[in-house]
Amino acid sequence: MAQGALPGFRDFYPEQLAERAYITGVWREVMRRYAFVEYDGPPLEPLDLYRRKSGDELVGQLYSFTDKGDREVALRPEMTPTFARMVAAKANSLRKPVRWFSVPQLFRYERQQKGRLREHFQLNADIVGEPGVTADAELVAIALDVMRELGLAATDVNARVSDRRLLEALLLHSDVSVDSLPAVYAVIDKRGREPAAISREKLAKVVSSGAIADRVEAVLECADVETLRSHYGQVDAAVVHIDRMSDYLRYVDALGFSEWVRLDLSIVRGLAYYTGIVFELFDTAGEFRAICGGGRYDTLLEALGGVNLPALGFGMGDVVLGELLRARSLVPDARSRTDFWVAADDDALMTDVMSVASRLRRRAKSVEYALRPQQLGRQLKAAGSAGASRAVLLKRDRYPGGEITVKDLRTGAEQSLPIDEFINSLD
Amino acid sequence: MAQGALPGFRDFYPEQLAERAYITGVWREVMRRYAFVEYDGPPLEPLDLYRRKSGDELVGQLYSFTDKGDREVALRPEMTPTFARMVAAKANSLRKPVRWFSVPQLFRYERQQKGRLREHFQLNADIVGEPGVTADAELVAIALDVMRELGLAATDVNARVSDRRLLEALLLHSDVSVDSLPAVYAVIDKRGREPAAISREKLAKVVSSGAIADRVEAVLECADVETLRSHYGQVDAAVVHIDRMSDYLRYVDALGFSEWVRLDLSIVRGLAYYTGIVFELFDTAGEFRAICGGGRYDTLLEALGGVNLPALGFGMGDVVLGELLRARSLVPDARSRTDFWVAADDDALMTDVMSVASRLRRRAKSVEYALRPQQLGRQLKAAGSAGASRAVLLKRDRYPGGEITVKDLRTGAEQSLPIDEFINSLD
Repeated sequence: MAQGALPGFRDFYPEQLAERAYITGVWREVMRRYAFVEYDGPPLEPLDLYRRKSGDELVGQLYSFTDKGDREVALRPEMTPTFARMVAAKANSLRKPVRWFSVPQLFRYERQQKGRLREHFQLNADIVGEPGVTADAELVAIALDVMRELGLAATDVNARVSDRRLLEALLLHSDVSVDSLPAVYAVIDKRGREPAAISREKLAKVVSSGAIADRVEAVLECADVETLRSHYGQVDAAVVHIDRMSDYLRYVDALGFSEWVRLDLSIVRGLAYYTGIVFELFDTAGEFRAICGGGRYDTLLEALGGVNLPALGFGMGDVVLGELLRARSLVPDARSRTDFWVAADDDALMTDVMSVASRLRRRAKSVEYALRPQQLGRQLKAAGSAGASRAVLLKRDRYPGGEITVKDLRTGAEQSLPIDEFINSLD
Repeated sequence: MAQGALPGFRDFYPEQLAERAYITGVWREVMRRYAFVEYDGPPLEPLDLYRRKSGDELVGQLYSFTDKGDREVALRPEMTPTFARMVAAKANSLRKPVRWFSVPQLFRYERQQKGRLREHFQLNADIVGEPGVTADAELVAIALDVMRELGLAATDVNARVSDRRLLEALLLHSDVSVDSLPAVYAVIDKRGREPAAISREKLAKVVSSGAIADRVEAVLECADVETLRSHYGQVDAAVVHIDRMSDYLRYVDALGFSEWVRLDLSIVRGLAYYTGIVFELFDTAGEFRAICGGGRYDTLLEALGGVNLPALGFGMGDVVLGELLRARSLVPDARSRTDFWVAADDDALMTDVMSVASRLRRRAKSVEYALRPQQLGRQLKAAGSAGASRAVLLKRDRYPGGEITVKDLRTGAEQSLPIDEFINSLD
């Protein structure tokens, strides 16, 4: 009779919800530190909102249908189109730069496989209105600060950063033709996820000579600005982009994250809409898929929302991140923290138990008590399985005189004192 | 180009999101005090989950469709079926009583009218496994504690409480026939929302005589246990229910909420599944629709999930509650609280600004700075429009010596001190 959830959808029992709340709580805390404000949009949107950006490829993975008012609608597969719509509608009145984040649940009808869900929660952070590279540095710092706040270190997670404009300039300088750029990007994007020989073979296929393939490999092997300068410092079309990358890394250093960041020109980002610096976060052990991805998309707001404003942002999902945190034992104990269990050794004290519970709750304490009359021993056992820290005992021969006993349920230590004194001590 | 959200769906700009976050934050805080733990389920469920409980009436208001795997699915219109499914799946291993809550977004395709949305957020709180009336008292206390925590008082909001079993006993005692009970409930349910004469006329129509209608009116006018006892204390079938109501009100009193609660036997609750004590929360001025409704539904878990466990719960939406809070000016100022704006009087100090921002953020402060070089005056103006409390000023002739100036942006007061001393003072 009791069926389960739909395939690819999660039930969040209290233990799983606690993990999700921990992750989303850290997200919100870090965003607050960077003075971002939260927004949200509807989980159901007009289908056209997604068609406009992504064409039919994404639409094939949508949960889309026709509603009772004959509208074509879809569960949101990503947040950016909603964000663009909302920013565009108030573009003139919003303080710039816009620093907004959201924690939407997103939906895609993906083929079922391990770790691939049909819904997930995703932190979306975006900055609108600032073309300068300081904003790019601020953005990657946020993503990395989330990692640090979750207990991860630069030995666990790295940001691989690139710049689409820099890569393009170096590829063209390497005699890759403009026409073959998309095919070369596609090969580069898969690099690192397949054997080097296969990647090399594919590359040779999409450029016109082995010499060009060698040159592309050399570009991709540049892992710092110094190497870039020594190899390509004289390439006019590349210098401005090398300078920008240099500034970017200097700003990332100022924000305290230089040891987390690696230049990696093979980071292309699958989505076609990025226009500048892009980044992805990976676990250094290479056990998991990307944790986070983002970058600059200066033309997208115009395409989606009709306002010409530079913008950049990232998305960070809860699924891979949760896997990584569990693997590193970084998810805090999810047990509920009940502060007090109120108990009595006489059924006649039931309303007194409730009254004491009520007074404790007014002091913002988390309080439970047995909802039905029970022996004191059973009540204390229940207090133990509820994970309560302390018990407040009402005894038939002392409570009428105003005295209670506070018992530490871990050490067993007891202290008897007047109820008013106890309550007042809780401030 | 920039269309809006679908009709009945809300965009939550930061100001609206802040209000929503305030309400859901209070919900979670109060639930914590009552030692409830949070759960969640999928927003998309098999359509059958809702058919089973509600038949075709509710199904007509569902956002339902066939997914790409040919499954009939629906956006959740309420949380109880998901809750029942999840509890049933782990019924044996869960600690009883189950004290769970959730804050789902729910969806119904309602006809468009003022205040009627097609989505809303709803606090769902449920207790499973306890048949005793103490649990009923605990439940209504939670709903009322939310009101109190939001700044509302017993003069603003009341809980009207009834008991389906008590009402049935008194109606049968008044010679209402068993067959006409459903029709009488329907009339009673609308009472108070239409003129008394119309209500009376409808009542006379569904019972067999004016004398019976008079007796029903007399039942509904009983507003306290004393009146019930004096009128019906000798009615065998009613005594047990009057006693229970008396216990219930005594427990509500022990929990500190007696002045918020009114006995009102006309509270029937639309949904057919309640089996015992029921309640609704209303604003005392009668300006708004019900704020919250709930009660005991001892047979529903068996019907929905196949486990025979007594249960009770309530739902409280964000829409009516938000209207009430706005009307009473009880929504706190939603302006973001940026702690510090870091500024410099020299573009060359950009990385220093970022470094100071980073150090402040490591102390959990909310920090912003101008992402592009600007005159100091413009930076401070931006700090003001961002609502920052204080500015940290880096001056070209003092910062190299390690000195900063902290400026209170409300009073204008300034203090210069070494940066390290300032950072250490923030703990």
